Amino acid sequence: MKVRVYYEDTDAGGIVYHTNYVKFCERARSEIFFSRGLHPFEGERSGFVVHHIHADFLATSKLGDLVEVKTNVIKISRSSVMLLQEIFKEDIKIFSMNVTLVYLAYGKPARIPTLFKEIFQTL
Amino acid sequence: MKVRVYYEDTDAGGIVYHTNYVKFCERARSEIFFSRGLHPFEGERSGFVVHHIHADFLATSKLGDLVEVKTNVIKISRSSVMLLQEIFKEDIKIFSMNVTLVYLAYGKPARIPTLFKEIFQTL
Amino acid sequence: MKVRVYYEDTDAGGIVYHTNYVKFCERARSEIFFSRGLHPFEGERSGFVVHHIHADFLATSKLGDLVEVKTNVIKISRSSVMLLQEIFKEDIKIFSMNVTLVYLAYGKPARIPTLFKEIFQTL
Amino acid sequence: MKVRVYYEDTDAGGIVYHTNYVKFCERARSEIFFSRGLHPFEGERSGFVVHHIHADFLATSKLGDLVEVKTNVIKISRSSVMLLQEIFKEDIKIFSMNVTLVYLAYGKPARIPTLFKEIFQTL
Repeated sequence: MKVRVYYEDTDAGGIVYHTNYVKFCERARSEIFFSRGLHPFEGERSGFVVHHIHADFLATSKLGDLVEVKTNVIKISRSSVMLLQEIFKEDIKIFSMNVTLVYLAYGKPARIPTLFKEIFQTL
Repeated sequence: MKVRVYYEDTDAGGIVYHTNYVKFCERARSEIFFSRGLHPFEGERSGFVVHHIHADFLATSKLGDLVEVKTNVIKISRSSVMLLQEIFKEDIKIFSMNVTLVYLAYGKPARIPTLFKEIFQTL
Repeated sequence: MKVRVYYEDTDAGGIVYHTNYVKFCERARSEIFFSRGLHPFEGERSGFVVHHIHADFLATSKLGDLVEVKTNVIKISRSSVMLLQEIFKEDIKIFSMNVTLVYLAYGKPARIPTLFKEIFQTL
Repeated sequence: MKVRVYYEDTDAGGIVYHTNYVKFCERARSEIFFSRGLHPFEGERSGFVVHHIHADFLATSKLGDLVEVKTNVIKISRSSVMLLQEIFKEDIKIFSMNVTLVYLAYGKPARIPTLFKEIFQTL
């Protein structure tokens, strides 16, 4: 998924504010579902929550840049999924994140719906 | 209410991103309730929504500044309230906004709860 | 310009947080320039600043919606431009804003570069 | 440092959007300097950048909550500092992050100014 860097994404340092890369990755995860006409949850009280992130900030990007988020599955288990999400500015990797998501239903870890597993497996 | 300007509030222009003043005003409106141990709604499906804003951006502020939001009531009617919210950096007025809020219950304009009217009247 | 509504754009009310419509409009203004390989400023110390907004919040949008920002020029003068920006969710207008931008160079109103005027005139 | 949870911090899930905890930690780091009348950089082209984060999301917080960010130094070296930042909601730890900051001058790792080292050592 391509993401344009707008004024709101930058800070007084003239570059993208660090946490916004984590937001760009969340957009990319949601877009996997939205682009298929789906939502990343089944029912009002269920959905994925971020459990853990491990992120490296490798280089910077600035106003007007068009960066690309690439998402790969590392591991899928019963109620959690671990993804590798990387952000590139042309050929340069500027951000890399391992993120573990847990699927919750009514506040407790629950089996990831089969359709969602299948979607992750296509990545 | 005092608000500190952090990196997240600034943009590549080196100053506070314009819409963040509108956010600072919303924080001040919510804080009126939170600081009294209340929430600005009664029941899950009710609350104030922003209906209209009219804002003037008069001067700038930058990283580390401590600005102050002042809120005054202009008019309270059955289901809406009009406020004047101004942001000052020391003695300089940097932002001024007229905002009209409508109280909704189940998606329709509803009578503002008496307690909330009384709170606004103390401003 | 189309804008997808992500988690970060919504709030605990379940709908898009009001100031984010103002941000979506800024993205659309910047994209006018970025999509042409340009930036909305000439030199480090110049650029457009928001001077005034007048906004009506007409309806809501929610997670996963794809909304569209339409930008029209109302008036261009020597150093300022007034735009009408409207956001639609399918056929429904959910937000409408008049925004006045002033072009500044070294902190003072300055003549809008001819190229920028021509770009606005094509809208 | 205490941080109030406002509408802008929450998302359609009804709780604080995950990356906002990372932002709250950045506010706390900046406030260490701002509260002493300082900025976290010396000269225009220097300052700390986030190099690495390792974060655990342990529990949730919601609109109106007052959470507290606690910052401890794990290690200070010539040009980098590793901090442990934890966020508490009353007695419950809801977020824990290890963050490594690198001090850059003109884009290259540089010796952390002595005053800044001393400030970190008081934490």
